[in-house]
Amino acid sequence: MMHYQDRILKELTQKDFEVDHLGEEKFDSPVPLTSYNKEQMDRRVLFNNFVQLNNKLPAKDILSFERPAPKSKIFFDSSKINVGIVTCGGLCPGLNDVIRSLCYSCLDTYNVKNVYGFRYGYQGLTNEFNHTAIRLDASTVDIIHEHGGTILGSSRGEQSIEDMVDTLVKFNISILFVIGGDGTHHGSARMVKEVTKRKLAISIIGVPKTIDNDIAFIFQTFGFNTAVEEARRAIDVAHVEAKGAKGGIGMVKLMGRHAGHIAANATLASGNSNICLIPEEPFTLDSLFSRIEKRLRNKDHLVLVVAEGAGQDLLVKKKGKEKFDKSGNLKLLDIGTFLKNEINSFLNKKGIEHTIKYIDPSYMIRSTPASAADSSFCLRLGSYATHAGMSGRTNCLIGHWNHHFTLVPLSLALGQDKRVDIQGALWQSVREITIRED
Amino acid sequence: MMHYQDRILKELTQKDFEVDHLGEEKFDSPVPLTSYNKEQMDRRVLFNNFVQLNNKLPAKDILSFERPAPKSKIFFDSSKINVGIVTCGGLCPGLNDVIRSLCYSCLDTYNVKNVYGFRYGYQGLTNEFNHTAIRLDASTVDIIHEHGGTILGSSRGEQSIEDMVDTLVKFNISILFVIGGDGTHHGSARMVKEVTKRKLAISIIGVPKTIDNDIAFIFQTFGFNTAVEEARRAIDVAHVEAKGAKGGIGMVKLMGRHAGHIAANATLASGNSNICLIPEEPFTLDSLFSRIEKRLRNKDHLVLVVAEGAGQDLLVKKKGKEKFDKSGNLKLLDIGTFLKNEINSFLNKKGIEHTIKYIDPSYMIRSTPASAADSSFCLRLGSYATHAGMSGRTNCLIGHWNHHFTLVPLSLALGQDKRVDIQGALWQSVREITIRED
Amino acid sequence: MMHYQDRILKELTQKDFEVDHLGEEKFDSPVPLTSYNKEQMDRRVLFNNFVQLNNKLPAKDILSFERPAPKSKIFFDSSKINVGIVTCGGLCPGLNDVIRSLCYSCLDTYNVKNVYGFRYGYQGLTNEFNHTAIRLDASTVDIIHEHGGTILGSSRGEQSIEDMVDTLVKFNISILFVIGGDGTHHGSARMVKEVTKRKLAISIIGVPKTIDNDIAFIFQTFGFNTAVEEARRAIDVAHVEAKGAKGGIGMVKLMGRHAGHIAANATLASGNSNICLIPEEPFTLDSLFSRIEKRLRNKDHLVLVVAEGAGQDLLVKKKGKEKFDKSGNLKLLDIGTFLKNEINSFLNKKGIEHTIKYIDPSYMIRSTPASAADSSFCLRLGSYATHAGMSGRTNCLIGHWNHHFTLVPLSLALGQDKRVDIQGALWQSVREITIRED
Amino acid sequence: MMHYQDRILKELTQKDFEVDHLGEEKFDSPVPLTSYNKEQMDRRVLFNNFVQLNNKLPAKDILSFERPAPKSKIFFDSSKINVGIVTCGGLCPGLNDVIRSLCYSCLDTYNVKNVYGFRYGYQGLTNEFNHTAIRLDASTVDIIHEHGGTILGSSRGEQSIEDMVDTLVKFNISILFVIGGDGTHHGSARMVKEVTKRKLAISIIGVPKTIDNDIAFIFQTFGFNTAVEEARRAIDVAHVEAKGAKGGIGMVKLMGRHAGHIAANATLASGNSNICLIPEEPFTLDSLFSRIEKRLRNKDHLVLVVAEGAGQDLLVKKKGKEKFDKSGNLKLLDIGTFLKNEINSFLNKKGIEHTIKYIDPSYMIRSTPASAADSSFCLRLGSYATHAGMSGRTNCLIGHWNHHFTLVPLSLALGQDKRVDIQGALWQSVREITIRED
Repeated sequence: MMHYQDRILKELTQKDFEVDHLGEEKFDSPVPLTSYNKEQMDRRVLFNNFVQLNNKLPAKDILSFERPAPKSKIFFDSSKINVGIVTCGGLCPGLNDVIRSLCYSCLDTYNVKNVYGFRYGYQGLTNEFNHTAIRLDASTVDIIHEHGGTILGSSRGEQSIEDMVDTLVKFNISILFVIGGDGTHHGSARMVKEVTKRKLAISIIGVPKTIDNDIAFIFQTFGFNTAVEEARRAIDVAHVEAKGAKGGIGMVKLMGRHAGHIAANATLASGNSNICLIPEEPFTLDSLFSRIEKRLRNKDHLVLVVAEGAGQDLLVKKKGKEKFDKSGNLKLLDIGTFLKNEINSFLNKKGIEHTIKYIDPSYMIRSTPASAADSSFCLRLGSYATHAGMSGRTNCLIGHWNHHFTLVPLSLALGQDKRVDIQGALWQSVREITIRED
Repeated sequence: MMHYQDRILKELTQKDFEVDHLGEEKFDSPVPLTSYNKEQMDRRVLFNNFVQLNNKLPAKDILSFERPAPKSKIFFDSSKINVGIVTCGGLCPGLNDVIRSLCYSCLDTYNVKNVYGFRYGYQGLTNEFNHTAIRLDASTVDIIHEHGGTILGSSRGEQSIEDMVDTLVKFNISILFVIGGDGTHHGSARMVKEVTKRKLAISIIGVPKTIDNDIAFIFQTFGFNTAVEEARRAIDVAHVEAKGAKGGIGMVKLMGRHAGHIAANATLASGNSNICLIPEEPFTLDSLFSRIEKRLRNKDHLVLVVAEGAGQDLLVKKKGKEKFDKSGNLKLLDIGTFLKNEINSFLNKKGIEHTIKYIDPSYMIRSTPASAADSSFCLRLGSYATHAGMSGRTNCLIGHWNHHFTLVPLSLALGQDKRVDIQGALWQSVREITIRED
Repeated sequence: MMHYQDRILKELTQKDFEVDHLGEEKFDSPVPLTSYNKEQMDRRVLFNNFVQLNNKLPAKDILSFERPAPKSKIFFDSSKINVGIVTCGGLCPGLNDVIRSLCYSCLDTYNVKNVYGFRYGYQGLTNEFNHTAIRLDASTVDIIHEHGGTILGSSRGEQSIEDMVDTLVKFNISILFVIGGDGTHHGSARMVKEVTKRKLAISIIGVPKTIDNDIAFIFQTFGFNTAVEEARRAIDVAHVEAKGAKGGIGMVKLMGRHAGHIAANATLASGNSNICLIPEEPFTLDSLFSRIEKRLRNKDHLVLVVAEGAGQDLLVKKKGKEKFDKSGNLKLLDIGTFLKNEINSFLNKKGIEHTIKYIDPSYMIRSTPASAADSSFCLRLGSYATHAGMSGRTNCLIGHWNHHFTLVPLSLALGQDKRVDIQGALWQSVREITIRED
Repeated sequence: MMHYQDRILKELTQKDFEVDHLGEEKFDSPVPLTSYNKEQMDRRVLFNNFVQLNNKLPAKDILSFERPAPKSKIFFDSSKINVGIVTCGGLCPGLNDVIRSLCYSCLDTYNVKNVYGFRYGYQGLTNEFNHTAIRLDASTVDIIHEHGGTILGSSRGEQSIEDMVDTLVKFNISILFVIGGDGTHHGSARMVKEVTKRKLAISIIGVPKTIDNDIAFIFQTFGFNTAVEEARRAIDVAHVEAKGAKGGIGMVKLMGRHAGHIAANATLASGNSNICLIPEEPFTLDSLFSRIEKRLRNKDHLVLVVAEGAGQDLLVKKKGKEKFDKSGNLKLLDIGTFLKNEINSFLNKKGIEHTIKYIDPSYMIRSTPASAADSSFCLRLGSYATHAGMSGRTNCLIGHWNHHFTLVPLSLALGQDKRVDIQGALWQSVREITIRED
């Protein structure tokens, strides 16, 4: 299996890294750039981060991202425009931080006329649901970053692209900030097409949101740091429960539909987990059972972490067909309950005294306020998204790579998956600390 | 002012990035490397992360770091050796995590004979202080990562290099893990020289510890994530205090002797700070006073964050000479109390009603248990330090750069400073959110 | 329905409040009682806390509890005895605090010879399960109070009384401290009978543990303060989830088999819950549906708190017979899932857009380390239990009433239930804040 | 020294416990009292909680408090009146909870016309400072209970009684809720006199606020539970610091001007403190030094907790006269810095290696959001204060005694001090756990 970074270096070219823009930047920016190193900021961020042993860059091309820096000249006459914000998909720590940062950047830094918050995801960009948009100002968003969730509300699923663009026109929106995941940004890409077709000067800027951390070209999505913190709490609780009973098994199901980033990182963070199952590494029940039996015979208790997307093949085999939810996401079958029952049967059959405590902390994780690292990251995401929009960039996401914020074309980001590389260093670390416990 | 990354690209060569090793790797490693991509791990980590606008790499050379990956062949016959651990300098979140990870890696993964913990920093490596070394095992370190501080204790200051190497010989130490800051690693470098002089096969591996985050080539030191989290708590408290009184001023002094990383990041994380003073950006009292007056007249309350090393020139002017502590660190004069008094006098003179609440959360920050992100990072640092030592690498630190763990020669790391680049993107973000409040 | 305090005043006499003791206190106590007011401590704690309007005490008798104070003369020759500790039933915040306090009181204050920790509840007092008892000392328990759970492990269910007393004899135990709930203390009472029958000088002292807070004569059991803190976190998460979606319903199931204390107090603590269902107040699905519909039509979101024991009559009607677990506790049918499905069907039928997020935080609540208030309370419980045991008291619990620690005969405590008085002041407060939201 | 409860029983009579009211309750209350036990609520709360050994009540009289229950008939025509809220003195966890609860009770339960929040303490009740009162409604206070501090701001010190009553008249206030400490309620008492003199039908209801927990007749003031939680954090940090260095001394100064309740309870909660100094128990430097020396020689590290009011006699002797602040509170000399220096000198003189880390967490403690227990308590305080005001009660505080909320005449509460009884059970517990460490 080739790692996605290798695949990119092999298959893509610099052209794939170039961001769309709406036109000439001819207005003066109100951003004060005192003592700011313009030359430095004009540099691009290198995509590559490895070299071969012979110290040569491994690919035909050096690939790089444009940076979303503030500019002296911008595309929009900022004090005369309206902007819109919408949050889509599941909750994630930091949503309110991004909303607040966008508001402050637009209102205070760029003096835009109006910031509209559209309610309940893409539903709020249509007429169908009758959700009234909120006019946001400093007092509305003053302390929202200290609270979880999103003050705008959210929803899953697509809406009519035409209706949504109609709404942008109706509210006279020049920049729409879309905070959401994969499915959401597919919608954005379609809106961009419609906007282009109608020859509208509307920028659509995406802020990537996925608590699973599976969007490519953003090394770590906002909310992920917080999620791992809360996930660790749950693993530590499972550890306490496991030790509290003879043959105690603490089992924690964590987010991760297709990527086990939270499970892997929380396992490392806790240092108390003995088995970690993720979607990227298939397993058989028999191999799992034998690890469990061995551990219980040696140590009397066990902590098992499982990402929600792990072992779906086993479930499908047992339970039948796959289904999809409103966002077009595969509806996962519940691996937690399945494993709990299977392990229980196995240990009963073997006559091993045990008790399984199964913890599903998903809502506790996703609805918590952002950690400091995430708050800081969100504040900067909001600020760079604003700079990007004002400069007329569109059809792109705000990324983060090799320590720097970047601009990532939607087509580039949506074409790649970010998975835990089970041949890589992180998973080797997980393997070292869990295998030792067997 | 040239940024240190630019300076490095201009002044250094790949030779400066090459790590010392003790000799041929001829023993089989006990680490199971199933399904692990050896080829990928053999690659080196690129130092550069920018390209020029023309998409060319900016320097004469491509610079890169070796990775501290587990190897199939290693230098030491691991099950026959003793290793030692020592923690030096001030407390920092994550110390116990690193100790625990080193123990588990050495004992469980490499089956070493003995792990000795030397007590109270370099003091424990001499006879003079009579500190008894502790033999560490799984039960000693089982839950220490859930507690702040270091179970080994620490101290500042140098000890006799000869005495310390004598102790290594006495305990038959093959690898010494040194967890500490700048001053500490200068000591390590001197020990390496002595070890070489005596032709001993002892590896000395440094784990960089600085809550100030000012060691070069490790993008973010362990403990920093936790420190910013706790620092934000203090700023939020200052914000509550400021709003609780007419003319309320909440002032927080944060760590940062020469580098304002904590202050800058906590300011971004909190979103509630109005002025942020760091060592890298000199200021005059007059400019500070005028910002304070303006803010109090507009908004009635103000939050001021100051790094301990900020404004030292003002203090020296007022208070006289600089002094040094045991570790050779400059003894800073107290900028917090100084500013509190000066601001107080100024506002009294102006007849502006006010009340200043001054918070110094340093111990609360540095003694807290590690955040999940830091725990995970520390676990991996300990594991990679062990791999590095076992492979016979020496005279180096474990770094982290462009998303990957690296090996950094001590001479390279100690020759560079990591400061907040006041012409760079991070400080631009701080300026945007604080300036807007004036 | 008469409140249990009224019932007690009517039906019981002072004789029911008198505690058993083993015999004459003839040994000098090693406890230093400098400046301690012995006369004050000899007073008894009044049970009554109301008077009638005419300022007369309402009952035929004044009822009072003995206090578990340290004495100058004690029953056991403390430095020559062994004591045992056992923890039974479900986990509860503070278990380790009590264990630590008992150890320190016995070892440091009374210099007992050995403290044995029996493992996995009453199982550890029999031969059948082969659990080895742990000898506890200062280093074993030093930092356990900073961790949730119990280092001794626990189990549910009864064991042979004869076997258990045999074990006490085998380990030469003079005082057995039993930390557990209702069922556990029924077991203790039976052990006391067996001990008496065999004419052994063994004191059995109970420390009441019930996260549900439903043991009479201890105003608030240890762990309850912590449980309400964590339960509030879950309700606040439910609130965030509820506001995050159109027609959002956040539902939290909390502990409370027969008593809704956690649900009621967490509802008050959160201030964000709109409906609170507890076992003490029956409800019909129709009345619940109409509150939900009204609220969703007015406010678009709703938070519902339900104690696990609420609405069991509805479930039994639907699902059939009741069953019992190993501890003899009624096996509750899952009210959470039941309500989720019923509410879902109802709202679908009504065509009201909604989404239900169901949170069951039980393990997160019970496995958390003790809050400061609970830690302090546990420390004193452990200390008073030791004083009580040393003075030869037996067959009793350590209670807390009208601000003072008390001794409560097992027969008295086990004969009474503590429920939320739905005609009382606390429930009136809950009703005021939830009803206002309809 | 006689305990204040004994003194009260000896010196006061039931007359001292009777609360003033403004006149006949002739309006129907809008509070729904379904299934509420009116008879039970009409009972009074017994002050006594001890009986003598002979099971007789110890005093000539049985003393009791009226309960602040909701009534069917009330004094004010609630939907036609305005009410006011003011917060005075230092910050305390829970202030916003009380404000929110008062608002909701008045607006939602009693449908009052206007709730005014007067800003910055008693300053806001005068013209002199030009602070504009805020009209509070549901949206203003919706989420304030999740934040520390007071949205109204506060100040110390007295203002003209006439001016303040003029303001009440100007705003047509029928009930004024005063949240504050001792000094504040002395001000309230004077306002009541002026109101009476002018024959106004204005009720003044006090909500006792003192983080020191030193107001009599309220067993535990709001904010205290939170304060002990945060104070424990600081002690635990001091413990980590102490263990981190040879001869490490962690010293924590806690609130407690005249009463050591926080210090005593945080010492019990932490279980890690070795010396606890409070104002109620005088000490000499020599006795302190000898405890410190003994401990350091035995255990190498030490944690010392000191209440800010402890050892003031030593300071006055050394530093001279006492001074008073704006609230009439004695300005304490800084015992923390004093002890740090004295201990340092002593240990230097003795040649004992040591390092002192001094932590003053006061702002971190008082500005934190309320714990669940405090939030619940504050919600009920606000509700009962409203019921009390509506029933025409005045010149009183809302107390809490023997598990029940009470009404306490201002004259009764202000005439008594609540101190740690150093001959009592709590202090005996502190002594047991600290003395053992010597």
